[in-house]
Amino acid sequence: MARGISKAAVIGGGVIGGGWVARLINAGCAVSVFDPNPDAAAGIEAVLARNHSAQLRLWPGQAPRRGKIHYATSIAEAVAGAELVQESVPERMELKQAVHAEIGAALEAGAVVGSSTSGLLPSIIQKNMPNGDRMLAAHPYNPVYLLPVVEIVGGDRTAPDAVARALEIYTAIGMVPVHIKKEIDAFVGDRLLEAMWRESLWLVRDGVASAGEIDDVVRYGLGLRFAQMGQFMTYRLGGGAGGFRHFLEQFAPSLTWPWTRLMDVPEWNDALVERIVAESDAHAEGLSVDELERIRDNNLVDFLKVLAANDWGAGRALQNPVAASLDEKMPETMLEEMFDGDKLVPWRGRVEDDWTDYNNHMTEYRYLHVFSLATDELLLACGGGAGYVAQGFSFYTAETHIRHIDEVAAGAEIYVETRVFSDGGKKLHLFHAMYAVDGAGDGGHLLATGEHLLLHVDMAAGRAVPMPASIAEAFVRIAKSQAGRDLPQGMGAGISMNKTKKATN
Amino acid sequence: MARGISKAAVIGGGVIGGGWVARLINAGCAVSVFDPNPDAAAGIEAVLARNHSAQLRLWPGQAPRRGKIHYATSIAEAVAGAELVQESVPERMELKQAVHAEIGAALEAGAVVGSSTSGLLPSIIQKNMPNGDRMLAAHPYNPVYLLPVVEIVGGDRTAPDAVARALEIYTAIGMVPVHIKKEIDAFVGDRLLEAMWRESLWLVRDGVASAGEIDDVVRYGLGLRFAQMGQFMTYRLGGGAGGFRHFLEQFAPSLTWPWTRLMDVPEWNDALVERIVAESDAHAEGLSVDELERIRDNNLVDFLKVLAANDWGAGRALQNPVAASLDEKMPETMLEEMFDGDKLVPWRGRVEDDWTDYNNHMTEYRYLHVFSLATDELLLACGGGAGYVAQGFSFYTAETHIRHIDEVAAGAEIYVETRVFSDGGKKLHLFHAMYAVDGAGDGGHLLATGEHLLLHVDMAAGRAVPMPASIAEAFVRIAKSQAGRDLPQGMGAGISMNKTKKATN
Repeated sequence: MARGISKAAVIGGGVIGGGWVARLINAGCAVSVFDPNPDAAAGIEAVLARNHSAQLRLWPGQAPRRGKIHYATSIAEAVAGAELVQESVPERMELKQAVHAEIGAALEAGAVVGSSTSGLLPSIIQKNMPNGDRMLAAHPYNPVYLLPVVEIVGGDRTAPDAVARALEIYTAIGMVPVHIKKEIDAFVGDRLLEAMWRESLWLVRDGVASAGEIDDVVRYGLGLRFAQMGQFMTYRLGGGAGGFRHFLEQFAPSLTWPWTRLMDVPEWNDALVERIVAESDAHAEGLSVDELERIRDNNLVDFLKVLAANDWGAGRALQNPVAASLDEKMPETMLEEMFDGDKLVPWRGRVEDDWTDYNNHMTEYRYLHVFSLATDELLLACGGGAGYVAQGFSFYTAETHIRHIDEVAAGAEIYVETRVFSDGGKKLHLFHAMYAVDGAGDGGHLLATGEHLLLHVDMAAGRAVPMPASIAEAFVRIAKSQAGRDLPQGMGAGISMNKTKKATN
Repeated sequence: MARGISKAAVIGGGVIGGGWVARLINAGCAVSVFDPNPDAAAGIEAVLARNHSAQLRLWPGQAPRRGKIHYATSIAEAVAGAELVQESVPERMELKQAVHAEIGAALEAGAVVGSSTSGLLPSIIQKNMPNGDRMLAAHPYNPVYLLPVVEIVGGDRTAPDAVARALEIYTAIGMVPVHIKKEIDAFVGDRLLEAMWRESLWLVRDGVASAGEIDDVVRYGLGLRFAQMGQFMTYRLGGGAGGFRHFLEQFAPSLTWPWTRLMDVPEWNDALVERIVAESDAHAEGLSVDELERIRDNNLVDFLKVLAANDWGAGRALQNPVAASLDEKMPETMLEEMFDGDKLVPWRGRVEDDWTDYNNHMTEYRYLHVFSLATDELLLACGGGAGYVAQGFSFYTAETHIRHIDEVAAGAEIYVETRVFSDGGKKLHLFHAMYAVDGAGDGGHLLATGEHLLLHVDMAAGRAVPMPASIAEAFVRIAKSQAGRDLPQGMGAGISMNKTKKATN
């Protein structure tokens, strides 16, 4: 079993650095981030919001797992205690070397330093770096939190056991490391992309096809194959009864055919740039980069689910974070962080785009989805999470009563505030109130209430039993702290035909 | 609206020709096939068997649509009466020219001839052909019955209206024709593939990475992106706030970097062939070509379903062959069909694989999902479906009370039986009971109950109003027919701390 890591550092917080933060917290790893740009945190939070949506889609009915994030004020502070340091600063050799010198000076014994470089040689980056034998290239693909591949390339000084440890760490955080045996410019994937890109530029420049038409040939055809099989495997299927050798021999002559303009490089000028931009604008159908990223992530998540269900390719690398067992360290501070003053707020999030009905309002059953996410978070914080369930006990919902108060549209920020009623016995009575965050003021406005009766169950015995003292103590403490308040409106009520309420669908 | 075709001819019945036969019969088109090889029919039947499996997976619960297949004994016989002739014979120019001369001589007026050639120029194929103005290249990707793209390339003699008709026909059979504006060797897609292939061969030859490792970089990374977006769109997302122009300008210098060996062609020799074959064998994990094709088709079908659900890329081209004819009959007979004896059963289905939690039991909020599906079906059957909502009225859920009785695992068949309480005014009170279908006997066992109060709302006025007579009549009729029975257990009850029930999570 691969040894995971509990603390990592991310140096450089752009799109790739932010993607690494997301990938690491998804694996339950605490992350210390350093980026000198004061805007970096906002950019990282934007990536984390996309990642949060992706995780909800990937593991429906499950509260996304999160390692803690700390914004450090120096490279040395970020690197202290980290078992993995992932560098994702801009692709300038002098900058890389300077940053790695600082990383190496602060590096823990046994830690590994991965550079996200797309093609700068690790031998040159690590040349004068302290602890340079722990450094290697670890080149991911965007979005890092969804695409599993990472190209591992050692340099002249890289120690074999640093490579071995890197393979172990990246595997443990749900990635597929591919160890490239020789250090060459651009490694493997970017060489393939560069080859396609050069050919594509010629096709546009020569007026054979537009940027959009070239993209269509990819996404309606060969790209659908590449999501599951590379080119060698694809061609292997073309060999028929004669086998792959037969196919290769048939293919050989085409290498000398005039099927390419790759022998030359198209001249890069303003006219070509403007042409590509205009053609790409037309192809994008007015969708913003933000919208395209959301579409991309939704498709990627669904492809990964397909591949996992079919036990193939990237689906095999998918790790359900709840199935892993890193939860134990979470509860300590988690419960305190759920309190907003004296309000217990176990869940905050947004109305996802695919949670809505044809009126663009949150659809009925997603109200219960949100309430169940809030319940799961609260259980986790009180010691009743997946780690506890693995011991054979669980909280089962016996009854639910939902009152719909108002509608809410896709994209709205929402949160759940919770009242706990429990004497620490077999029963846990929760009253959730879901609010939309309004533009001004504190609080928000009430969307729905969810009243739930849960039973603490010994799953093997198949019956309700009292909670253990550790969990009971947490719930009783919350219940007592809230005991002086009025009972929530609607609590304990049944449905009758005499009610008239403002309603939502 | 595109005019489809009712009869097509397929000349050449290899993997590509067989794929065309499948694509055409899926669209309900009769196909006449000619191939001089006596083994061709067996090969076509093998492709059709794979296509049949794919169609069952693509449209579950629906009998695959099939056009008729006729094996002709000559090109002239096959071509007679065909509106589309698709040629897929081996890639030798003399053979192509001879076959097209025969096709042209037998061609119907207004018909179109498409060649599946991967790159032979249509101008040369059509040069001395009778009716050569009706001929063009129509290059598909394997498997033709699943991948929608087809590259359309006219030659010197090709008439513009033959191109227009070809675009119409290929669209009508569920494909995405991309019209290539200039006739060049290998067209567009094969140029991109050839560029990647050359680079890949260098990487293997130089010992940088194995065939399997190169394939892994594709299928775990860049290939997942290409199933939905081509390279231009992918890079567009990399531009960030600076836009695509900024990205292109940053990318420009890399064109002159030494990131490629494409300027040269690797020497093709036995040692390289043996090396690739051995590496590919290792990567195939002992799976036969037949098994790999099944895996590929399953993945492709599931990708297409994902993309259709997300209304994106290749999913948009997906045409359900029977969807068009299903709509009309709905409300009139739908309500009667919901009655199983005197039981009203508005919904039957199964617990989907992604509806479960880590215990493999249906997760909490999917209970409400199932109840809401049952409500939607019942509303549709009583005249309150999407068409009614479009008129500005809707049924909004005001309250829900769920009682969990038992757990249910993924794959279980379940159904919802419903009691209706309504006097046809503003309110609709439903009591759903969800059952699992047991192996023996009638009925099933109770999983949960869902009690719902819905209000009939005038959406523009924002208030509850009485239902129209047509809808009220249906609900009152159901309510009266059920009026003699006992009230369901648990109806009208609220949640109290004094209840103990068998429970589920």
